[in-house]
Amino acid sequence: MLDVRPVFFVVGVLCVTTGPMLLVCALVDLANRNPDWQVFVLSAVIAVGFGALMSTATWTGSIRLSLRQGFLLTVLSWVVMSFVGALPLWLSSLPISFAGAYFEAMSGFTTTGSTVISGLDDLPPGLLLWRGLMQWIGGLGVIALGIILLPFLRISGMQLFRMESSDVSEKATARLVVLIRQIVLLYLAITGLGVFAMLALGATPLDAAVHAFTAVSTGGFSTHDASAGFFDVPIQAVLLVMMFLGGITFPLMLLVFHGRARAIFEDDQVRLYVRIIAAVVALIVAWRLVATDAEFLPALWGTLFNVVSVITTTGYATENYITWGPFAETAFLLITLVGGCTGSTSGGMKPYRLLIMARALRNQLQTRLHPHRLTRVIYNGRVVEDEVVRSVFAFTWMLLGALWVLTAMVAATGIDFVTAFSAVAQALANVGPGIGPVIGPAGNFATLPEPVLWILSFAMLLGRLEVVAVLVVLSPVFWRG
Amino acid sequence: MLDVRPVFFVVGVLCVTTGPMLLVCALVDLANRNPDWQVFVLSAVIAVGFGALMSTATWTGSIRLSLRQGFLLTVLSWVVMSFVGALPLWLSSLPISFAGAYFEAMSGFTTTGSTVISGLDDLPPGLLLWRGLMQWIGGLGVIALGIILLPFLRISGMQLFRMESSDVSEKATARLVVLIRQIVLLYLAITGLGVFAMLALGATPLDAAVHAFTAVSTGGFSTHDASAGFFDVPIQAVLLVMMFLGGITFPLMLLVFHGRARAIFEDDQVRLYVRIIAAVVALIVAWRLVATDAEFLPALWGTLFNVVSVITTTGYATENYITWGPFAETAFLLITLVGGCTGSTSGGMKPYRLLIMARALRNQLQTRLHPHRLTRVIYNGRVVEDEVVRSVFAFTWMLLGALWVLTAMVAATGIDFVTAFSAVAQALANVGPGIGPVIGPAGNFATLPEPVLWILSFAMLLGRLEVVAVLVVLSPVFWRG
Repeated sequence: MLDVRPVFFVVGVLCVTTGPMLLVCALVDLANRNPDWQVFVLSAVIAVGFGALMSTATWTGSIRLSLRQGFLLTVLSWVVMSFVGALPLWLSSLPISFAGAYFEAMSGFTTTGSTVISGLDDLPPGLLLWRGLMQWIGGLGVIALGIILLPFLRISGMQLFRMESSDVSEKATARLVVLIRQIVLLYLAITGLGVFAMLALGATPLDAAVHAFTAVSTGGFSTHDASAGFFDVPIQAVLLVMMFLGGITFPLMLLVFHGRARAIFEDDQVRLYVRIIAAVVALIVAWRLVATDAEFLPALWGTLFNVVSVITTTGYATENYITWGPFAETAFLLITLVGGCTGSTSGGMKPYRLLIMARALRNQLQTRLHPHRLTRVIYNGRVVEDEVVRSVFAFTWMLLGALWVLTAMVAATGIDFVTAFSAVAQALANVGPGIGPVIGPAGNFATLPEPVLWILSFAMLLGRLEVVAVLVVLSPVFWRG
Repeated sequence: MLDVRPVFFVVGVLCVTTGPMLLVCALVDLANRNPDWQVFVLSAVIAVGFGALMSTATWTGSIRLSLRQGFLLTVLSWVVMSFVGALPLWLSSLPISFAGAYFEAMSGFTTTGSTVISGLDDLPPGLLLWRGLMQWIGGLGVIALGIILLPFLRISGMQLFRMESSDVSEKATARLVVLIRQIVLLYLAITGLGVFAMLALGATPLDAAVHAFTAVSTGGFSTHDASAGFFDVPIQAVLLVMMFLGGITFPLMLLVFHGRARAIFEDDQVRLYVRIIAAVVALIVAWRLVATDAEFLPALWGTLFNVVSVITTTGYATENYITWGPFAETAFLLITLVGGCTGSTSGGMKPYRLLIMARALRNQLQTRLHPHRLTRVIYNGRVVEDEVVRSVFAFTWMLLGALWVLTAMVAATGIDFVTAFSAVAQALANVGPGIGPVIGPAGNFATLPEPVLWILSFAMLLGRLEVVAVLVVLSPVFWRG
C-alpha cells in the first residue's frame, strides 16, 4: 500500500500558504470598499483550516518522498490548489458556475490564462489581484517542477536536466536549497522591476502588479478585456521583455550574476527558442506585407508581441490576430504546442525536445543509407542517452494522443473542429486563447458547456505536468503497488 | 558516384508497360466514336518511345540494385509514371492545366483518389478507364512496395516485415517470385469477382470495371460526380467488401488458399484494423442518433461505408458526411491518418505502427514506476527490436513534420486552416477527399491554385513512399555518396 500521509501533509501546507495571499486580496477589496472582502476572508479561513487539519492529521515526522509519492504529490498539488483557488471566485458575486471557477483557478495555477470571466475592467480589484497571484505562485511552482520534480521523476526526457549529482547527500540538498533561494530572488527581481517600469510608464498600481505577476509567469491573465491591447507600446514592451525572460531557463539566467551571461546564448535550447521566434515573426510579417495591406512597423510590433505571447504560452493579445488572414490563423495554430524552455514558467513541447527529435530523425535518415554507422544525438555538446531520446518521443506522442482523444470528446458536445482542436491544444500547452470566433483572442471560454470546461481543466493539468505524471497516477499499476 | 543506369533502365521498362494500357483506352474511345482515342495513341507512342529509348540507353547487363539505387528507383518510379499518366489528361479536350493533370495522375498512381475533374458523368469513357487503370496498376505497385521494397530499404519500421530469409540466395528469390505471382492472381481474382458482382447487380461494364479497379486498389476514383452515392446499397456493399479486403495485408489473405484462414484474424494488425473501424463507426452512429435526427439503419450504413472508405484510404463518398454535424467532421479529420494494413493497397500510418507505439508508451509508463524493470514491445507474439520501435516513432514524426510544414505552405497561399490541414493530411495518407466546403466529399480540388496542386502532389508522393524514402533521396548526403 502507498503511504499517502506525507503527500497529504505537503498538500496541506500548500493550502495553508494561500491564507496570507487571500487576506491580501481581502485588504485590497476592503480598501476599495468592496463587499467581496468577506469572500476572501471566508476563503482564507476555509483554506487554512482545511490545510492545517490535513497536515496535522498526516504528519509522520518525515517528508522524505518515494518515487510514487512524488508522482502523487505533483498531481495532487495542482488539483487541490485549484479547488482552493476556485473558492473566492465561486463564492463571489460573479455569475460563475463551480465548473467555471475551477477552470479559472486551474488556468491560474497552471499559468495557462484562459478565462471564463468577461467584463474584467469592472471586476472588484481583489478578484483581479487573486487571479494574478494564482499565476504568480503557479509560475514558481512550474519552475520548481521543471528543475526538481520532473527530473526526479525521470519522465518525458526531463531526466536530461537532472543535477550533476542528484544524490540525496546533504551537500547536494544544501546546493539545491541555495539554487531555489536564488531562483526565487530572481523571480522577485524580475517581477519588481516590471512593476516599477510599468508604474513609471503610467500604469495603475493594480494593473502594474497583476501584469507583472502574469507576464513573468507566462500566465496571461489581464485586468482588462482588451488584454495587453489596453496599453500603449511602451508598457507592451515591458510585458514583451518579461514574457521573453519568463520563457528562458531560470537556472541559466542566474549565470548572469556569476559573470557568465554569454553561456545563456550558448545553450542549445535558448538558441532554438530565439530562432523559432525570429523565424515565425519573419514569416508572418512577410506574409502580411505581401498578402494584406498591413504597414511594416505596426505589423512587426503586433506580430512580434503576439507570437512571443503564444510561444512563451503567455496568451496576452494586443490584437485579434485571427483577422490577419488565413495564414496567420494557421501559423498560430501550428506554433501553439511549441512552448518556451524547460526550467522556465512556460509550457508546451519545449524547444529542447524539438531539437532532440530533429537530431534523432536526421540520424535515422543517415542510418538508412549507412546501416552500420553508429549515430548519436548530441545536446549541448554531450551525447544524449537513448533512454532520454525514447522518453522524448514517448512524451510527444502522449501529448498528441491526448490532443486527439480530448479533441474528439470536446467535439462530441457539438463544438466545431477548429474550436475544439485549438481549445485542447492551447490547454495542453498552457497558452490561453484558442483560435476562432468563440475562444480566439477576442473570445471567452464562458460560452463553452460545463463538461467542456472540465475536459479543458483536465487538459491544462495534463499539459502542465507533462502528461506522463498524470497518466502514471491514473494507471491501475500505480495503485496495485 | 551513384550509377543511375540500372534505375533508369527499370523506370524505362515501367513506361513501356503503360503502352498497352493506353491503347486499351484508345480502343474504348474508338468504339464509342470519341475523338480522344487519338490522344491515347499519341500518349502511348510517346510513353513507349521515351521508355524504350531510356531503357536501351541505360542497359548495363544487370539490374541488381544497391540500397541507394533502390531508394532512387522507388521515388523515380512514381514521379516519372505520373508524368506519363498525366499525358492523355493534359492532351485531351479537358480544360486542365499541366499541374492539374500531374496532380490527377499522381493521385491515380498513389491510389489517393483526389480529383480536379468535375463533370465525370459526361467524360469520355477512355479517360474514365485510364483514371481507373492508373489506380489499379498503382495498387499493385503499392503492394510490391510494402512487401518487397520498403522492407529492403529498412525504413519507417517496415524492416519488421522482412521475409524470414531476406538473403539474395536463388532459393529466396524463387520463393519471392512465387509470392508475387500468387498476389497478382489474388488481386486479379478480387477485381474479377467485383466486376462480375457489379455487372450482375446492373452496373454498366465501364462502371463495374472502373469501380472494381479503384476499390481493390483503395484508390477511390469514380465515374460519377456523386461517387459511390450514384449506386444503390447492393453495389455499395460490393464496393465496401472490396475496399475492406484492399486494406488487408495481401500475403496474409493468401493463407485462405492454404487452409489457414483463421491466421488472418489472429494477426495483431488485422485485429486492430477491424477494431478501429468498429469503434469509430459505433461512436459516430451513437453520436448521430443522440445529437441529430438520423435514423438507425441509414445512419449505420452511411457511417460504415464512409468510415471504411476513409480508413482504407479509398475516399469514395456516398454522402456529404460533413453535414452530419461537428463531431462527424472532427472524427473524420482524426481518422484521416490511420490507414489500412501494411502489404495492402492502402496508405496512412497503419495499425501496426499505432500498436507498436501504444505498447512502447505503456512500457514507458511502467518504467517510470519501476526504473530497472526490463520491458519489451511484443508484436504478433514476438519481441520487436528497438531499432524497429525507433523507426516507427521516427516515421510518425516525419509524417507529422511534413503535415506541419506543408499545411503552413498551403495556408500561405491564402487557404483557410481546415482546408489546408485536411488537404495535406488526406494527401499524406493517400485518402482522397478532404474536409470542408472546398475539398470535402462534395467538393473538388480544381478550385485550388496551381502551387497548391504541386504541393499536394508532393505530399501524395511523400505519404505513399512512407516519407523516409523521399527525404533520403532529397538529402545532400545521398548524392555526396
